[in-house]
Amino acid sequence: MSEPVIVEVGLGERAYDILIGPGLLARAGTELSRRLPGTRAAVVTDQNVAAAHLETLKAGLEKGGIQPAIITLPAGEKTKSFAHLEEVVDGVLAAKLERGDVVIALGGGVIGDLTGFAAGIVRRGMNFVQIPTSLLAQVDSSVGGKTGINSPRGKNLVGVFHQPKLVLADTEVLDTLPIREFRAGYAELAKYGLIDRPDFFAWLEGNWTKVFVGGAERAEAIAEACRAKADVVARDEFETGDRALLNLGHTFGHALEGATQYDGARLVHGEGVAIGMALAHRFSARLNLASPDDAARVEAHLHAVGLPWRMSDIPGELPDAEALLGFITQDKKVSRGALTFILTRGIGQAFIAKDVPASEVLSFLKENHPGQPK
Amino acid sequence: MSEPVIVEVGLGERAYDILIGPGLLARAGTELSRRLPGTRAAVVTDQNVAAAHLETLKAGLEKGGIQPAIITLPAGEKTKSFAHLEEVVDGVLAAKLERGDVVIALGGGVIGDLTGFAAGIVRRGMNFVQIPTSLLAQVDSSVGGKTGINSPRGKNLVGVFHQPKLVLADTEVLDTLPIREFRAGYAELAKYGLIDRPDFFAWLEGNWTKVFVGGAERAEAIAEACRAKADVVARDEFETGDRALLNLGHTFGHALEGATQYDGARLVHGEGVAIGMALAHRFSARLNLASPDDAARVEAHLHAVGLPWRMSDIPGELPDAEALLGFITQDKKVSRGALTFILTRGIGQAFIAKDVPASEVLSFLKENHPGQPK
Repeated sequence: MSEPVIVEVGLGERAYDILIGPGLLARAGTELSRRLPGTRAAVVTDQNVAAAHLETLKAGLEKGGIQPAIITLPAGEKTKSFAHLEEVVDGVLAAKLERGDVVIALGGGVIGDLTGFAAGIVRRGMNFVQIPTSLLAQVDSSVGGKTGINSPRGKNLVGVFHQPKLVLADTEVLDTLPIREFRAGYAELAKYGLIDRPDFFAWLEGNWTKVFVGGAERAEAIAEACRAKADVVARDEFETGDRALLNLGHTFGHALEGATQYDGARLVHGEGVAIGMALAHRFSARLNLASPDDAARVEAHLHAVGLPWRMSDIPGELPDAEALLGFITQDKKVSRGALTFILTRGIGQAFIAKDVPASEVLSFLKENHPGQPK
Repeated sequence: MSEPVIVEVGLGERAYDILIGPGLLARAGTELSRRLPGTRAAVVTDQNVAAAHLETLKAGLEKGGIQPAIITLPAGEKTKSFAHLEEVVDGVLAAKLERGDVVIALGGGVIGDLTGFAAGIVRRGMNFVQIPTSLLAQVDSSVGGKTGINSPRGKNLVGVFHQPKLVLADTEVLDTLPIREFRAGYAELAKYGLIDRPDFFAWLEGNWTKVFVGGAERAEAIAEACRAKADVVARDEFETGDRALLNLGHTFGHALEGATQYDGARLVHGEGVAIGMALAHRFSARLNLASPDDAARVEAHLHAVGLPWRMSDIPGELPDAEALLGFITQDKKVSRGALTFILTRGIGQAFIAKDVPASEVLSFLKENHPGQPK
């Protein structure tokens, strides 16, 4: 079996490793007991992931002498609730785990966010291990320490920063994903090239088919995205500055998710981010910040991999430009009324732009709206 | 009006001030807007404290231009639950507060712990201000950043470390406390003398009546306890070592609270700590670690202020020594089966003793048990 790629996330006392490669579920016990000898564990997962991967993980943990308690939740975004948080907390306490024992998240972003939050609050912070099973979770949730649940008043409004002790990103597991979900995760992966790694974006333009097929290129692409994110997070662990760069594509993307009522049949998060990234580049070109050629390059690549890249790629009707602007100004990342955007000076040259005039955004939305007279 | 005593809690980026003195509720708006200009706020309190102090605080906040949202909860330990945590989180979000706005706890330990936890998780951490209204909360909860709720499986099992931005300890408010509650808080105050400030303990022996009466000595005693705790916490913010010293008196104390089913009519927390501290000194003398004279001095001072100091001071029957030992070994501070105690070499010379033999504890409990033949 090939050795995994290791990405070290440098956060001082909270530093940890991300292991990326095939067959890591089967090696989980070995890797865990090497780093946290004598530990006991609970595994939190959802019903779908449990059906596909839980037995493999249990067998892998057994090799390290670990027989975990298992907490299985319903699949889906609604699981990120107070009720399920309490369920996980109670399950971990029922297993009589101590502060030095481990809570393991086996699943996508929902399970990772919820489980990390529970691990962050039981006994004021237990050891946490992530085993992300979606591409989105492998590139996005593996680094950053953000955990949380949704409130009826908005998504991800409640949570803590809690860093894992170890992340196992098993690249083989991704072969069980629906292709549309893999593509959506790929949008977040490509984002890191667009933020500050132009060479990585160029490499993806040439090698994306191998990332989709699997093998060494897939592991390397995930590793590079994790390295890129780790660099940003190390500069700004608690999101007071630079970390906002990670929201490239997310302001437009969230607005489109809101405008489609978070209906996954029309638009999933990564697809919203794909369109959002294309719009952020096109908007930057309109403001004479970046070359239109760079915007065209981004659009062409997203199109090549099969991702939506313009508003007209979303099935069904969209609200008009004024309504879309309303979704943007409601966004929780709007600070004290000022419109903050992640804009760019070209591929790999994203920056935080504060006080972007709402009138410019509105004009741009009107120009690009599929159902509106120009 | 006299100027408050200011204790600076040095925690690097998380450093903050504790203001201690009379009339601080009325000055809350001035102090808050000086430190966090333009902030909006929510006040979390309980029905009893609201009746006594909320109008004074609201008038005080108004002077700083702050009109807070108010969240009022039932009084009592049962309020430290998931249900009330969710209620506070929702109330703060309903008030549309942003990450830089302030959540204020007005109340005793229950309100402080619950509110700090909510502030620590809404938007992954909002600004938090403590206005503790009991002596126990002023000396114990003002410093340390521990927040949390209870689980059906045990007290304080769920929470986060979240430091306040400011603590206002209004010493005048304490005059509304029942004397028994004031005395229970005094036990925690005296604890800091016993841990590592022998001069402070000697000062209390000579000046405790002035602390009970109020005035400058009361503020100074609270300030000295906060300084002492801040020194320990600065050495060990996340409780991996020295911070365990703060548990002086708590191992025996918790066992006695458990043995009396947390029945406040028989024993409140501070009283348990008082008896626990006396027992910790007497046990240390029995192990030839400290002089019996020091144990006698501790007992005499607790007796002088009207606190219970021996098991026979608890009304009603206690379980036998074996059962009491059972409560100790169940305690969450027992790490991987080893019995850890805070023992002492004399007044102000407490230390962490690991691997204390259970047999010694049992013999000691038998010797000191009021209902057991010696």
